[in-house]
Amino acid sequence: MALYFGVDIGGTQLKIGAFTKDGALVDKWTADTDISNAGSHIIPDIANEIRQYLTGNGELQPAGIGMGIPGPVDRYGYVRTCVNLNWNDFYPVKELGKEFPDCRIAAGNDANVAALGEYVQGAGKEYESAMLITIGTGIGGGIVLDGKILAGAHGLAGEIGHITTDSSAHECCSCGNLGCVDHIASASGIVRVMKEMLAENTTDSIIRSLESITAKDICDAARGEDELAIKCLDICMEPLAKGMAFFTHAFDPEVFMIGGGVSKGGDTILEPLRKHYQENLFLTDRGADIIVAELGNDAGMIGAAMQVL
Amino acid sequence: MALYFGVDIGGTQLKIGAFTKDGALVDKWTADTDISNAGSHIIPDIANEIRQYLTGNGELQPAGIGMGIPGPVDRYGYVRTCVNLNWNDFYPVKELGKEFPDCRIAAGNDANVAALGEYVQGAGKEYESAMLITIGTGIGGGIVLDGKILAGAHGLAGEIGHITTDSSAHECCSCGNLGCVDHIASASGIVRVMKEMLAENTTDSIIRSLESITAKDICDAARGEDELAIKCLDICMEPLAKGMAFFTHAFDPEVFMIGGGVSKGGDTILEPLRKHYQENLFLTDRGADIIVAELGNDAGMIGAAMQVL
Repeated sequence: MALYFGVDIGGTQLKIGAFTKDGALVDKWTADTDISNAGSHIIPDIANEIRQYLTGNGELQPAGIGMGIPGPVDRYGYVRTCVNLNWNDFYPVKELGKEFPDCRIAAGNDANVAALGEYVQGAGKEYESAMLITIGTGIGGGIVLDGKILAGAHGLAGEIGHITTDSSAHECCSCGNLGCVDHIASASGIVRVMKEMLAENTTDSIIRSLESITAKDICDAARGEDELAIKCLDICMEPLAKGMAFFTHAFDPEVFMIGGGVSKGGDTILEPLRKHYQENLFLTDRGADIIVAELGNDAGMIGAAMQVL
Repeated sequence: MALYFGVDIGGTQLKIGAFTKDGALVDKWTADTDISNAGSHIIPDIANEIRQYLTGNGELQPAGIGMGIPGPVDRYGYVRTCVNLNWNDFYPVKELGKEFPDCRIAAGNDANVAALGEYVQGAGKEYESAMLITIGTGIGGGIVLDGKILAGAHGLAGEIGHITTDSSAHECCSCGNLGCVDHIASASGIVRVMKEMLAENTTDSIIRSLESITAKDICDAARGEDELAIKCLDICMEPLAKGMAFFTHAFDPEVFMIGGGVSKGGDTILEPLRKHYQENLFLTDRGADIIVAELGNDAGMIGAAMQVL
């Protein structure tokens, strides 16, 4: 039987899945990522993991291997620089191809392949064009149009986290710009804004009783009708919603799928997003659906495999 | 010989071009657009124009006809509503197909097909992905990725004129939103800002001596180092440049081609656009080229034909 593999390459872990030609997951496992020696062990390690898995199963043939990479990847699968893996001027597709000369090999940015995973097997199944936005420590994005990842000419496509929609911002984002969506709508941005709000006024809030605050605490409080938490999420989601409206005027997808840890907040996140999204559309009776992604942490591994399926 | 036709359907004029299968323009002419009776004459009139052109030339066979339409067109060529032509719930491709059953027929939004024209025969020839931005009475946009028009799920793709990047705006755009790019970077926006600047301060400017002011006057003055005119264009181009940076983070084209009447300002427009574009990019060493479009008013007619070539 022909087997296809998806490898989500993280800075600390490899997440590997084996799939049938119909895209059904057969097995999944993890291994450590060894980024020493300019990341030169990573590709041989992936090859070993796959060979070990196949050992003793003579009837299993690897037919394709797709990789998700935590950094910019051009449309041909070339990586100019990937700080998380210590790769510079590196062609992972070529390197892995040497190990499996008869396999179809592909590589894409991790957020882009996660978008492809959601598009094929997750929340985007019923749509022709979709964007995945992951809200976690940072904000990532990936776009799929007519079944194909849109990488862009310089690997910048889908970088919604670093558009600057908050013109009142006075603190720099980690990228050096002022007013990035990432700086206010990410998990850490939400916590930062909440702390500022707690300090600035005396409104009652369940959050005041907590020793340390997480974005999850704020979503939970909002679900319990905590006014300050609701207000905080409204403030934090507005710049992202504005960015989603801009993106609608750019490539006009059918759906935005919200993933990442913060998406577990469900309606406490979706409601302010939908409200501010509509406010910023040119024609308000049209626009994309905004829904929660479905595949969680497996999206990248699944989408990595979908590149070769 | 097989002939292909491109028809740029404007609210007052039809612009028709006849092309060889290699895309060479053989002839072009115009006719009036008759939008009476819910625009029901337009398609028969186009058919008559083409039949008349072919009359007496037995060896000429119409093989394809492409239309550019001044309003939203979905990916299948369907028009829900087009106020400029009085069309509602109309399928121009089907209607023209009845007149020429053996022809390939296509329709697209006029800005989108103009982008295709520039991509195939104009400023975008050397690029794989491109966006045309027309700066005239209003601001329009069209996107071509890998040779295909990106229309979007709701016909909103490329609508850069109606994203709201100017958070200090207090006057409504014609679309009803505050702070639209269109309201400040269009020809009328530039004139409005210049008038405000003339009223607000006493700086010397050659513009003060003019009875009525056009965007061309302001570009000419800027070329002559008129400080106030240079400042005006800097202010007016900033929101558009910001929008172009947002669009780069969305679909990341290789080039922005600036067309429309105001693009004749050349470097007086390109320089502030390039400066503010770089300021708003996530990674400033990458990004698109910004150049002037080449085909002028013929872009739409040429691109209309390119849809069927």
